[in-house]
Formats: sequence, structure tokens, C-alpha cells
Amino acid sequence: MLLAFVALLTGAGAAPPTMADVLAAAKPSDWRALDPENTLYLELTAGRVVIELAPGIAPRHVANIKTLARQSYFDGLVFMRSQDNYVVQWGDPDGKKTMGTAHKRLPAELTVAAAGQPFTRLEARDAYAHLVGFLAGFPAARDTAHLWLAHCYGMVGAGRDDAADSGNGSELYVVIGHAPRHLDRNVTLVGRVVKGIEILSVLPRGTGALGFYEKPEHHVPIASIKVAADVPEATRTHLEILRTDTATFTALVESRRHRRESWFLHPAGNIELCNVPLPVRARP
Amino acid sequence: MLLAFVALLTGAGAAPPTMADVLAAAKPSDWRALDPENTLYLELTAGRVVIELAPGIAPRHVANIKTLARQSYFDGLVFMRSQDNYVVQWGDPDGKKTMGTAHKRLPAELTVAAAGQPFTRLEARDAYAHLVGFLAGFPAARDTAHLWLAHCYGMVGAGRDDAADSGNGSELYVVIGHAPRHLDRNVTLVGRVVKGIEILSVLPRGTGALGFYEKPEHHVPIASIKVAADVPEATRTHLEILRTDTATFTALVESRRHRRESWFLHPAGNIELCNVPLPVRARP
Repeated sequence: MLLAFVALLTGAGAAPPTMADVLAAAKPSDWRALDPENTLYLELTAGRVVIELAPGIAPRHVANIKTLARQSYFDGLVFMRSQDNYVVQWGDPDGKKTMGTAHKRLPAELTVAAAGQPFTRLEARDAYAHLVGFLAGFPAARDTAHLWLAHCYGMVGAGRDDAADSGNGSELYVVIGHAPRHLDRNVTLVGRVVKGIEILSVLPRGTGALGFYEKPEHHVPIASIKVAADVPEATRTHLEILRTDTATFTALVESRRHRRESWFLHPAGNIELCNVPLPVRARP
Repeated sequence: MLLAFVALLTGAGAAPPTMADVLAAAKPSDWRALDPENTLYLELTAGRVVIELAPGIAPRHVANIKTLARQSYFDGLVFMRSQDNYVVQWGDPDGKKTMGTAHKRLPAELTVAAAGQPFTRLEARDAYAHLVGFLAGFPAARDTAHLWLAHCYGMVGAGRDDAADSGNGSELYVVIGHAPRHLDRNVTLVGRVVKGIEILSVLPRGTGALGFYEKPEHHVPIASIKVAADVPEATRTHLEILRTDTATFTALVESRRHRRESWFLHPAGNIELCNVPLPVRARP
């Protein structure tokens, strides 16, 4: 029976291209390297989590987060929340750290003008938006005038209080459950975990309300958060992301929409935004 | 900033009923007790996981699983897989356990005739089905003739090989990530975790292909799986589930579709099947 689940994902036999086939046939130009200036390394005892920032969507939050990182603001902070099927969240539980030259309040960056943005539409029904797709490698949604990032698994956002301008990027969360898309356009998304999400998704769930840890000794320490550009080249994690504006990506989506492997009895013929894989690989 | 996230979920201030308001106003008859004959207790070192079975949808698999449980088949087996944003899975890695009087092959139980079923429709766009809703407390989808359960977070299914009749319920998986709805109508869903999912969702991810643990010492042991009816009354976990065919449940859905709490800048006005909470409480 061990094979049952292997078959479940990879399919036995094989017909038209699978995702693995599509990726094997990808050209070097289908991939893009992460920009070290817009990549964060979140270091925990369990390892490194790599976050791609989205300066094109949330420029002021991204700049503030980088300012904070460069002041070592995050070093020694903790994960103080792990809520099942929702988010993990880190920050300064005592509120004692100084933010230095970083802004303490920033306007929420919830949408950008759609005009001129390289939005790749996904043909898919969506519960929350009439149009969904991808923007520079991030899952996104749009209407006629605006684009916004979507709260899929692994997306990183900036907590805020009631006031729209009360966030600043000092307290961040990562989605570790079914996509909480009702948060779209309500809170600033700043990026996506591209490697190491499994370090975060298994953090013991907090037993307090909303998954907050009830005792300081439950907090999970953060060694540091650094901008990749500030880390010596030799110790960087060199990753490439499949471009979402390529024929290869379109083929990948179709390979997942129509699973023709022999295991499938009822190929869905459909796909949902947050079920589209966004492949990442080590730089060849 | 600690409050930012509290506000994010509960809302500060408050207008029309929140989910908490709806639940506080629920009548005793809005709740139903779990049926001990169709409830499993999965016991791990970390605690008890409670699974509600769905005998109305997958009667042969449910009967076989109960037969296996009553022969102590599962006791001493292990979790051998934990794939991030997908499933955890247990079974007999060596294939040495005898299944006794249980069936070794069962026809897949993927759909049931829709006629006469108490399906509660959810008004929601869905990527995978034209109609979605709830059936006896489980997330479900339907077309004109058939109903089927949906692979939302916490759903429990029975692994199979390529042949539709190759499953038997001896190897089960639980969804611990974004809903893999492409599996709907492809694999028999047998129930849902109603308590203790956080014990399963944090199992260390396997580093082998598809999240299989690479070494036997990584396996996570199962003390036992018992039918609740076979457990002394005093040690049962007495739970109630909010009925999905009630006005209270309808109100709950609306409280989540339209988040009117002051924190929200753009209430979604929409909801997705797998984002509808299915409340569980201790028996009062």
C-alpha cells in the first residue's frame, strides 16, 4: 500500500506532459534568479527560511522591513503565535525594541494600479475575485482598475491595528493553512516564503486565543533576519524561480489542471489559484 | 503591536453578529452529538485525535475501518508520511499486519446519488464544482445527479493504488494544507478530524519524495485507533458539532462572508467552501 500514495501524486504510467516533464523541458530563460536586495533570510535554530519580497506591490513596507533588518531589529525577536490552519507570526512581544530610522506607521499598500502591470491571467473560477493570476511570480487577483496579492499558502504579510496606516512591517505573519483569502486587500502582503516553509508550518501551535503562545518559554527564537545582499556570497542560498509570464508556466498550469495520469478517475479539468505550484530550484 | 493580530481575527468594536455572537445565540438543538459508533479515537503520544466517520457517504470503507480498528489492526502502526501543505498519512510500512476479516479491496466510494440527500447549498463560486455546500456536517459538492465530499483541511481519506477498487481503509491520510480539491471524486473520503488536528499538522515533514520519512526511526507511532463506542464512557471525548442544516449555521456563514468588524477595510462579501468553519464544542 505504500505505493498508493506515490501513485496519488506522481501518477503511474503517463500520458501528456506531467509537471515533472514540463520542468525538465524548461529553458534557462524560463527561470529568474532571486534579487538579493529583495530577499530575506530568516534564520532559526531549525534552519533558514528564504522570503522573496514584493517591492513592486508594497514598496514602502518592503523598504521599511529592509531598514529594520539592516538595523538588526529582528535579531533576537520571537515567533509568538502559531495558529493551526492559519498563520505563524513573529514580532517583539515586549515592544521594547527601538525601530531606529524605520517608520512606525505606514499607509497600507493593498492594491496597485492594474494598467501596465505584467499580470498573467489564470483561467479559473475564484470565490473571492473575478480575475486571478500571477504578478511577477506572486499569486494575485484583479479587477478592471487594480491588482492585489492573494493570501495563498506561504504568503507573508504585515500585521496592523484597526487604522489602515498602523502597520509598519515590524510584525510579520506567514500563511500556513488553507488560504485566508478574506484577508486580501485588508492587510499588506509583502512577499512569499520560497524555501523553508516547512520549518514554520510545524511550529507547535499556541494554546492561547488565536494561537498565541501562553508562556514566554514557548516562544520560538529568531536568530536573525538579514537582507540576502548583506550576507557574504558564499553563504547565500542561490535560488531560481520559474517565471510566471512564460509558455513553460502556462504548460505547467495545464499539466496540473488536467491530470491525465492513470491514477486519476475524474481529472478535475479545473484548478484554483492557490493550488498552482510556483516552482523554486537551486541555481544550476 | 500584539493587538494587531487579535484585531485581525476578532475585530475591534463590532457591528452585526460575529461568529462568536452567532454561536452564543445557538440553541441546544442546533448541535448534534457525535455518534460513538461512527467516531474514531486515534491515540498518539501527543494526545487524542477525534475523527468523525461518514457512513452515509462511504459505508463500505467505514465498515472496513471499524472492522480493522476492532481487530486492533492500527495499534502500533505509524505515520510514515508528512508532506508540507498536503497530507499526513499512516499505515503499515512493512505490510506485515494481517487484515483478518476485513476486505483487502473495496470499490471506491466517490459519490452518492444526490436525490433525497439533505444537502445544504453554500452560495459561493468554486474552482472545482458548480455547486458546493454541506452534507451532514461535511463539506461537499454536487452536480445534478451526484454528491461527493470535498478535500478540505482536516478531511480523512483512504489511499488506493491505480485500480479504483484497490483501497480498503487500512492506509489513511489527513489533509493538512490548502485544500487539494483535485482529489475530489478520485479517492474515497471517509470522514473528518473534529478535534486534535493540530497534533497531526505539526508532524515533522518527511524529507523523502512526497514527504515520506526516510528512516524508520522518523516514523511517528500510533498507540491505537479505537471506535469510540468501544471505549469506556468515562474516557470518551464528548463532542457536539454544529448542525449544518440550521438557521444558526446559515447565520454563521453570513457572519464570515460579511466581516463587518471595524478592522476590515474591504469585507470580502464572499466565502469559499473550505473556509467555512464547522464548529465543534465539548458537550455542555
